[in-house]
Amino acid sequence: MYPTREAAAGGPTAREHPTVWGAPSDGPFGAEELAAHELRGFTILEDFVSDEEVATFSDELTRLAGDETLRADERVVTEAASGEVRSIFEVQRFSAVIDALTRDPRVLGRARQLLGSDVYLHQTRVNYMPGFKGTGFYWHSDFETWHAEDGMALPRAVSCSIALTENYPFNGGLMVMPGSHRTFVPGIGATPEDNYRSSLKAQEIGVPTEEAVTGLAHTHGIDQFTGPAGSALWFDSNIMHGSGNNITPFPRSNIFLVFNSVENALDEPYGAAAPRPGYIANRDTTPLA
Amino acid sequence: MYPTREAAAGGPTAREHPTVWGAPSDGPFGAEELAAHELRGFTILEDFVSDEEVATFSDELTRLAGDETLRADERVVTEAASGEVRSIFEVQRFSAVIDALTRDPRVLGRARQLLGSDVYLHQTRVNYMPGFKGTGFYWHSDFETWHAEDGMALPRAVSCSIALTENYPFNGGLMVMPGSHRTFVPGIGATPEDNYRSSLKAQEIGVPTEEAVTGLAHTHGIDQFTGPAGSALWFDSNIMHGSGNNITPFPRSNIFLVFNSVENALDEPYGAAAPRPGYIANRDTTPLA
Repeated sequence: MYPTREAAAGGPTAREHPTVWGAPSDGPFGAEELAAHELRGFTILEDFVSDEEVATFSDELTRLAGDETLRADERVVTEAASGEVRSIFEVQRFSAVIDALTRDPRVLGRARQLLGSDVYLHQTRVNYMPGFKGTGFYWHSDFETWHAEDGMALPRAVSCSIALTENYPFNGGLMVMPGSHRTFVPGIGATPEDNYRSSLKAQEIGVPTEEAVTGLAHTHGIDQFTGPAGSALWFDSNIMHGSGNNITPFPRSNIFLVFNSVENALDEPYGAAAPRPGYIANRDTTPLA
Repeated sequence: MYPTREAAAGGPTAREHPTVWGAPSDGPFGAEELAAHELRGFTILEDFVSDEEVATFSDELTRLAGDETLRADERVVTEAASGEVRSIFEVQRFSAVIDALTRDPRVLGRARQLLGSDVYLHQTRVNYMPGFKGTGFYWHSDFETWHAEDGMALPRAVSCSIALTENYPFNGGLMVMPGSHRTFVPGIGATPEDNYRSSLKAQEIGVPTEEAVTGLAHTHGIDQFTGPAGSALWFDSNIMHGSGNNITPFPRSNIFLVFNSVENALDEPYGAAAPRPGYIANRDTTPLA
């Protein structure tokens, strides 16, 4: 349906499916907001959570990153160079306040509205990008990975990134190409076994060609997710995004929640030999409520 | 005078010398512009050169980067990973149009005015940062290097960077800390022999401590040199600056000219065993005219 991970990469193709599956009457987003999201593939909401909530979540992240008993857990990913904690997956299992956040009407209402159905958590994590040492992520579409490696049939998933630190234009925040979610760009090359073990630190397989990235950048330009702590970025599963490194002293932390429609349950992977573990690609589609 | 490159790094110290040495009556900058430059340590001028000049200079850079006969010249620096040309030093010797630019009244008038005397070229180069592959430079003060490795007594030098491509906030352009030029931050560690051979590709010796960079960033914040091709950044020799990597398809090229006052001729290096070659630190103080 969305062919990818083939030795001879095909060219970009037009997306077949909608971005917004629900209606203005379904939830918090108004008609104009939904139209803009359909067009651009992302929405930034400042003051999505309060300063008090930012402080609560930040304390929670500090606690989790400092918990030595978690270091051996496969859900805890460390920075290749420094050994510091970079991400914790399935974080709602470790944190009651983040578990509650995934069901918060501000969050769940928007996820359901964008996807036009009940939803479940496909993946969650918290990300820590320390000052000075943060390395970036090359351009990619999440859906390309989820389709190839997890068997997600359609781009009927949406991510919510909640910033717990200020995103400046210069400290390695997310870059997105507005409108690029309407194009499916295949990743190059066959997926090696257990690719996720290295791809979570540095993506090398399944990346788009420089030609495709150049074409999208010249067509759509590049926007950045900037704003104070407490801002949220809602972005479509298929939008082309990436991030540079961070040489500034200003760290970045965020909570990252991926919602998938219960009508888009995972199948066998379309471009890999075996599915990834459940903490990276959850197969329990029990709806959030 | 400005102690640096010692095994036990001292802390930051206040700069003893002025930034602007000339007067409004001396040249193109007005009184307010000079006051702002004294305060911030840099000035950005859009439309510093015309679109036609940008095209002429860009063609010149393309010609120089493509000239295989120059590849063996020590003045031509290549990217560690890809082998592509990253910088060409003493570029006015290779290019009549760039030689003329160094004497252009828009350039030379401002250099003389800021430094309050006749000036000569301490260093020149053109920089190529290709899309996708551009690596950044860690935070540093040029004057720290020029003082330690070249024997430049005082921060009475100024750099002019002319952008030949658009500087976005996200394609690895220069970051500066406004006002940081008023503080001298020592570099850590003794200078190894022939340090310049590696330091031009990736600075490792003489870098400021993370503590010092953090202090300056929290005091002064970070600005970026953004703007269309043809913009110029004039910046003090002692301003703290750096750049991130560039994962976007948008390349960056610029012409970089460093002017030193003829009254600030190089001495023996204050923090290195031997002076660097003349194409990196020119010792011919014949004034530009």
